[in-house]
Amino acid sequence: MLIIGERINATRKTMGEAIRKLDKKFIQDEAVKQVNAGADYIDINCGTDPAGEVESIEWLVKIVEEVVSVPLVIDSSNPVAVKKGLDVCTRKVLINSINYQTADTILPLVKQYGSQIVALTLDEGTHMPDSAEERLSIAKKIMEKITKYDIAAENVYFDPLVRPISTEPNQAKEFLESIKLIKSTLGAKTVCGLSNISFGLPNRKLINSTFLAMALVYGLDAAIIDPTDKIMISTIKAGHTLLCQDDFCADYIAAYRNGTLIS
Amino acid sequence: MLIIGERINATRKTMGEAIRKLDKKFIQDEAVKQVNAGADYIDINCGTDPAGEVESIEWLVKIVEEVVSVPLVIDSSNPVAVKKGLDVCTRKVLINSINYQTADTILPLVKQYGSQIVALTLDEGTHMPDSAEERLSIAKKIMEKITKYDIAAENVYFDPLVRPISTEPNQAKEFLESIKLIKSTLGAKTVCGLSNISFGLPNRKLINSTFLAMALVYGLDAAIIDPTDKIMISTIKAGHTLLCQDDFCADYIAAYRNGTLIS
Repeated sequence: MLIIGERINATRKTMGEAIRKLDKKFIQDEAVKQVNAGADYIDINCGTDPAGEVESIEWLVKIVEEVVSVPLVIDSSNPVAVKKGLDVCTRKVLINSINYQTADTILPLVKQYGSQIVALTLDEGTHMPDSAEERLSIAKKIMEKITKYDIAAENVYFDPLVRPISTEPNQAKEFLESIKLIKSTLGAKTVCGLSNISFGLPNRKLINSTFLAMALVYGLDAAIIDPTDKIMISTIKAGHTLLCQDDFCADYIAAYRNGTLIS
Repeated sequence: MLIIGERINATRKTMGEAIRKLDKKFIQDEAVKQVNAGADYIDINCGTDPAGEVESIEWLVKIVEEVVSVPLVIDSSNPVAVKKGLDVCTRKVLINSINYQTADTILPLVKQYGSQIVALTLDEGTHMPDSAEERLSIAKKIMEKITKYDIAAENVYFDPLVRPISTEPNQAKEFLESIKLIKSTLGAKTVCGLSNISFGLPNRKLINSTFLAMALVYGLDAAIIDPTDKIMISTIKAGHTLLCQDDFCADYIAAYRNGTLIS
């Protein structure tokens, strides 16, 4: 499972300030810290200031590329900002995100730049999907659009939208089932942020990490997490080892030796 | 998932001593502590002293029944000790364990006393099963014997035998798959001890708890664990909540409030 580092996000107070103040060192340190902790992609989100987003994306992509060699995630739904990110980025890009309504504004860029795309299972309107089947049904509609642009399924990650179990107890099961359904039916990949699952409950890290172990079983392909969160990274390393995705536990043992794992 | 408390086991040094010294208070405290921590069954194993096993089983069953109201697991492969346990026990008993070779010595007692039984997926000889299919194949052979004694599948728990991934990386996957196969094919339940999975690896609790979360997904019906191990209990509580087996997260929140969960 790929780890997308979520820390360069302007909704985090210190990061929002650093972006406004053009604090290059702070942001570059955050990028390096995430890669050292295991991030396979670095997410860049500066959508809190719509007027400055295009300029910020350009600057952020450049300074992050200076210090890490992993691919970047352009986390924006503004086509102008996405295009700017694609223009300045020198390596593979994952665009996060489209939904059914916004697909046609971004998909031409996905095709043109050969990038990857995250598609949220959101239909027209603001209704969030309830069941696994509803998530699949929306994913199918979006996949039809994606196919029209001749974009390969292997470049598509669906995000089936994690919703809190505190108010809707069946949402973990429905989400997990949707991973299996979307992968087997559409041949696409899956991605998500996990922390919504525990909204409203105590000891959220326990719920999040247990849910992550379960999502690994269902074949979740990527997770948008804070890779410096030791519990989450430890669960991923242990999960990979258990699911035979880590030859002779070598990565797990290395993570133990370099202090990555919880003790 | 049911929790079988494993702490009253003579292979543990302090417990072995307590049994030899007839230290009733120590053993009763261990029983109470396990039930308070969430144990649904209490396992009783005093097989380290074959000459004294029958007498010890009788005493242990009596003193444990005095202080807790949960059912007991008679953990012995000696038919005389098992019969003594069944004779003195006033409540439902789970016998742990038979295998293909020993089945015919214990199954008449299972039928006679209407008890439950754990069957290890061990064939003739000492060969441990490798694949999920091999585990199922042995379980089928044992189930034929069980059926001959007219014992209902709902009273049968198969233990598909957890083996370390450090030497055989595919064993977690094969074990997990066998849970699904045995349940769907034979209509029986499944149980296991988990800790073998991490033998030879660092940070064993991390591997064990991640594996437990995965086993919950596959429908493991019971686990033989130390219920005072906060990580394992926390994973079970979180897992039940995520899999919709805890109405409105009530048990999870109660466990948080009474300090059962890791923080």
